[in-house]
Amino acid sequence: MEFSIRKGHKEDMESVYRLIHELAIYENEPDAVKISVDDLINDGFKEDPEFEVFVAEVKGTIVGMALYYKRYSTWEGKSLHLEDLIVNKEYRGKGIGKALYIEVMRTAYDNDINRVEWEVIDWNKPAINFYLSTGATMIENWNLCQMNRKNLKIFLDKHEGI
Amino acid sequence: MEFSIRKGHKEDMESVYRLIHELAIYENEPDAVKISVDDLINDGFKEDPEFEVFVAEVKGTIVGMALYYKRYSTWEGKSLHLEDLIVNKEYRGKGIGKALYIEVMRTAYDNDINRVEWEVIDWNKPAINFYLSTGATMIENWNLCQMNRKNLKIFLDKHEGI
Repeated sequence: MEFSIRKGHKEDMESVYRLIHELAIYENEPDAVKISVDDLINDGFKEDPEFEVFVAEVKGTIVGMALYYKRYSTWEGKSLHLEDLIVNKEYRGKGIGKALYIEVMRTAYDNDINRVEWEVIDWNKPAINFYLSTGATMIENWNLCQMNRKNLKIFLDKHEGI
Repeated sequence: MEFSIRKGHKEDMESVYRLIHELAIYENEPDAVKISVDDLINDGFKEDPEFEVFVAEVKGTIVGMALYYKRYSTWEGKSLHLEDLIVNKEYRGKGIGKALYIEVMRTAYDNDINRVEWEVIDWNKPAINFYLSTGATMIENWNLCQMNRKNLKIFLDKHEGI
């Protein structure tokens, strides 16, 4: 199957949003996507964008994407975070995900990044096996913590004036 | 004990580096810190800085710090990552860590951030208990993946021209 990889533009954000939603369903979190297509356009295509994205196309249709942004490690220095690597389920197993992954890794290398980081759900064995086969390391004894805006407000209200 | 919290400046990076190194030792990774004081100065105090930092002072000495930067979630939108929250071991249990944490959370809230994220090593029960008590959620079924620059080069060399 022929496909091509290119940088994503504003006009692609509807397709990118569709893929984000598809991944959320795959991860059993169908209601998790709180952002909109407009958020992706506003956040990704302003002067100091919050992310960049590669898209994979087959005959003019976007069937995959890799979304990433800069991070910083106090151990390694400049780092790049791969937030999402998604290929539409009808197009898996054709090398499209790997091509997107290579493009992100090449971008990192060319930009003097010292470490690329991402997260994987522990039952997604095909993804884990692929990542390990590329030379990535998986760390199982660190947990992710998150504080959403609602709980942030509750916490701050309790500590006002401190 | 009296302490104060303020934004960190270039001149504080030597103390910040010392704390980063102290945490690496606590986490049984004494050789993990590859960056230098100069890297912190160059990366944190350029036009588009890679991170920001709060420091905690007791009688003019820096005894703690919280280092953070922007991230982006394709579910929640604008996010802030708390990379390190460190208090020198002789000054723990005095509310300094909590004060730094509040300052980061307040910064996130005031900047319309939808989610604050960080990572915690699974045996650091005092830290985990504190985070949970503030309303944070801990996610245990996601694993961190990392690709360092050395393995990045090996991987890309194998896939040159793709």
